[in-house]
Amino acid sequence: MEAYSLELKAKPFAINAGRHIAILHAETAARLGLHPLDRIEIQNREKKIRTATVIDTTDTVLKKDEIGLFSELAELLEAEDSHRLEVSAAGIPDSLNSIKKKLNGATITSEEIKSIVRDINSNKLSDIELSAFMTAVHIRGFDLNETVAMAQALSENGRKIKFDVSPIVDKHSIGGINGRATMLVVPIVAAAGLYIPKTSSRSITSAAGTADSMEVLANVNLSAAKVKEITEKEGGIIMWGGSLDLAPVDDKIIRVEYPLSQNPQGQVIASVIAKKAAVGSKFVVIDIPIGQGMKISDRQQGSAMAEKFIAVGRRMGMRVEAVLTDGSQPSGNAFGPALEAKNVMQILEGEYFDNLAQKSCELCGVLFELAGKTEAGQGFDYAKKILKSGKALTKMQQIIKAQGKRVNSSKKIEMAPYSAEIRAESEGEVARANVKKLIELAKIAGAPYDKKAGVLLNVEQGHAVEKGGVLYTIYSENKRKLALAEKLALASKPVEFEKIILEKIS
Amino acid sequence: MEAYSLELKAKPFAINAGRHIAILHAETAARLGLHPLDRIEIQNREKKIRTATVIDTTDTVLKKDEIGLFSELAELLEAEDSHRLEVSAAGIPDSLNSIKKKLNGATITSEEIKSIVRDINSNKLSDIELSAFMTAVHIRGFDLNETVAMAQALSENGRKIKFDVSPIVDKHSIGGINGRATMLVVPIVAAAGLYIPKTSSRSITSAAGTADSMEVLANVNLSAAKVKEITEKEGGIIMWGGSLDLAPVDDKIIRVEYPLSQNPQGQVIASVIAKKAAVGSKFVVIDIPIGQGMKISDRQQGSAMAEKFIAVGRRMGMRVEAVLTDGSQPSGNAFGPALEAKNVMQILEGEYFDNLAQKSCELCGVLFELAGKTEAGQGFDYAKKILKSGKALTKMQQIIKAQGKRVNSSKKIEMAPYSAEIRAESEGEVARANVKKLIELAKIAGAPYDKKAGVLLNVEQGHAVEKGGVLYTIYSENKRKLALAEKLALASKPVEFEKIILEKIS
Repeated sequence: MEAYSLELKAKPFAINAGRHIAILHAETAARLGLHPLDRIEIQNREKKIRTATVIDTTDTVLKKDEIGLFSELAELLEAEDSHRLEVSAAGIPDSLNSIKKKLNGATITSEEIKSIVRDINSNKLSDIELSAFMTAVHIRGFDLNETVAMAQALSENGRKIKFDVSPIVDKHSIGGINGRATMLVVPIVAAAGLYIPKTSSRSITSAAGTADSMEVLANVNLSAAKVKEITEKEGGIIMWGGSLDLAPVDDKIIRVEYPLSQNPQGQVIASVIAKKAAVGSKFVVIDIPIGQGMKISDRQQGSAMAEKFIAVGRRMGMRVEAVLTDGSQPSGNAFGPALEAKNVMQILEGEYFDNLAQKSCELCGVLFELAGKTEAGQGFDYAKKILKSGKALTKMQQIIKAQGKRVNSSKKIEMAPYSAEIRAESEGEVARANVKKLIELAKIAGAPYDKKAGVLLNVEQGHAVEKGGVLYTIYSENKRKLALAEKLALASKPVEFEKIILEKIS
Repeated sequence: MEAYSLELKAKPFAINAGRHIAILHAETAARLGLHPLDRIEIQNREKKIRTATVIDTTDTVLKKDEIGLFSELAELLEAEDSHRLEVSAAGIPDSLNSIKKKLNGATITSEEIKSIVRDINSNKLSDIELSAFMTAVHIRGFDLNETVAMAQALSENGRKIKFDVSPIVDKHSIGGINGRATMLVVPIVAAAGLYIPKTSSRSITSAAGTADSMEVLANVNLSAAKVKEITEKEGGIIMWGGSLDLAPVDDKIIRVEYPLSQNPQGQVIASVIAKKAAVGSKFVVIDIPIGQGMKISDRQQGSAMAEKFIAVGRRMGMRVEAVLTDGSQPSGNAFGPALEAKNVMQILEGEYFDNLAQKSCELCGVLFELAGKTEAGQGFDYAKKILKSGKALTKMQQIIKAQGKRVNSSKKIEMAPYSAEIRAESEGEVARANVKKLIELAKIAGAPYDKKAGVLLNVEQGHAVEKGGVLYTIYSENKRKLALAEKLALASKPVEFEKIILEKIS
């Protein structure tokens, strides 16, 4: 249906809205039958440009014959000050009707999910609309078809990298909040002759993301061309995924999920599988840490999630295996980018074999068996052999060099200049190291922004400690941050002791 | 816990954000451990002003030692260009944790609802957060306690008007999309000696709101002092509620509900009861129109909603009675502000007694019986008597005069200059006049912005029409709008005929 239009004068605002937003005088909006947050069609007849966008209204900043345009929109329309534009009401996009359906409890079709993802990608949905959609998904969930459609749509709206080698394999950890297994898995797997182009995230809520830790050793901002080149030559890469745009819509979705910590399982699975599909992965191992206070709190939930991962992977043409791991205890002893990188390099250098090394070899084993590299049941031993032989260290050094070396030996990794040792107030046995509290300390000390800041744990579960023995050390670039962390350490007591005497009765 | 802070230079942006929003350089945000949409505390030490707000991040518009402030925030902090501000991470507000609880399926306490409403009122929640909350309420609903708490919170955060007369009564229609019963109920009830300070809305989705129609006859923008004066003197008033701020939080909630047409029943009930409580209503009648395509589609749903209204009203100290009415057929014959005002004035002048008059007298009857003005079962007759006697017309003229008269007789209400008569293509009997389609036509013709535009229905259900007989007339201020409406009229056929021959078999 053709709509009634008005000719209005452009009034560009020199500010980015991050989206396409226009502003109309409240009375002009009413004349066009529009309400704030409705959509309009704007046409620059002269330049033959036409676009649709969301409006807001005002009765102060604009005159009645003006239309306010934020930078992105003014640029798109090539509209300068007082330029004449034709403005009319636009219908609501199909994707909005699909979101309403989801809100009201119906499942939606693949085509509907794809139209929603396309409109998210081109910024056609407002924050309010996108937040309502993700809240509906959070509450109502996605069924298998919806999850597959979301994975396909995310991948279709992102960049793809095609490799001339095979098999491409991958590893992903769900909500793992510490432990840099990726930095061990990649060199072991690559040393075995498989190809693993691993993209990782920076930390949002933990003391270090894999990309933050790897950045201590090498450059992690790499182009798609470099990803292809390094993976094909070295067999592996560990880089920051943010610049690659494998699933750019995912970033926009995560942005609105963040304030309320929404994390619908179907969306998480779709996002992981989409990124694996974008690089053509054939075999994928998923690490699902289980524990109180984690995303997945028991084995039953973990198994259910594992099955969904496998099913969605199969529909997207890849073989997935999921491993449930214990997330309640720290993996490794480090919290903070440099400390975690050092922990990893020491393992590769053969200095020790801790629970992080154990877990990493188990994940590699699954990939080896999936890819037919070893017989069933022999993957773990094969991985451990590669690690112990020093081949994984050599491979890591080659990868570091290819990405742009910073440091390639644990000895050369520096810590922040200020530190504080937190000691036991009495003797006892360590019952539990609270991962979340240790991460909180590392963050207050400056991690992950200050790469050399963090917390190094000196004890582990079951370990006997004397009074005055060092429990952990806090590192910081800044005296004030260190003092804040020490203060929190005394209050939160992240290392819990076994209570030998539960109660004294006298 | 004390947080690490940085001293940054203020960079005010001369633009209103509608909310308190600050912008940090992405790297500065990371240094403070902040993520986009996190909250910060900003302190202007010099002026001893401290406030918390939501941030966004940039890596272009700002330098690393700057903080961008939109107008509202710059004004609040009294911060000029390059003014030094101390900035640190702030915790998330309690209300956000309560919203998370609701999202995850728990019911929330009265105190939690009150804290959410306070934070909405002071613009502490972002669009994303508020949209997530209303979506959760849309999907999960409010129980009785939550609804009462919301009604109390809405009313506590708004203006109250205290009258020195009694009893105060009120009337509300849920999602009524046409028919100006209010403009008949108020003069009849006031003529009977009760007090009815009726606040009404302007149209968002229909051809006219009560405030739009009443504005044809009188001024509807009145101060709280005027509301008190006119109600106490004349017994009634019909005004626009927007300027009174009886439940300002409601407007902010409706804003985020609008794009996805969310309308959680608990929120609707809370909003209506809150506004009635704000003016001290003792007796309230609720009109619940029922019909396909309406908010309430069957009697069972209608009864359930009625019971909730009564229960919430009781907890807020008022007696509520709800009436289920037929919403599938038009009330009156008019769509558009001036046409609906004319319809009402003609009824008051005694020209006819149509289904709008019938419904209005029934609503008045309920109020008369609730307030003890008549015996049970006699309210309707008493209302009809007042209407027929001309006392309601006199009262309406007094109210019009008190509010600021424009027109007080149906003869003087003008229609728009351009009109088109839509005629029957064949003879037949009218099966149904589709209210939604007629409203759509009236809106395309210019209503409610153009007050004299609209659609006048010439036929009603069961009415026999000859070929070429006038079905309805479209009025418009503008030839182009009229042409668009005519085009839609031919396509959408809002008046449906009885199909005498369902099928021809030959």
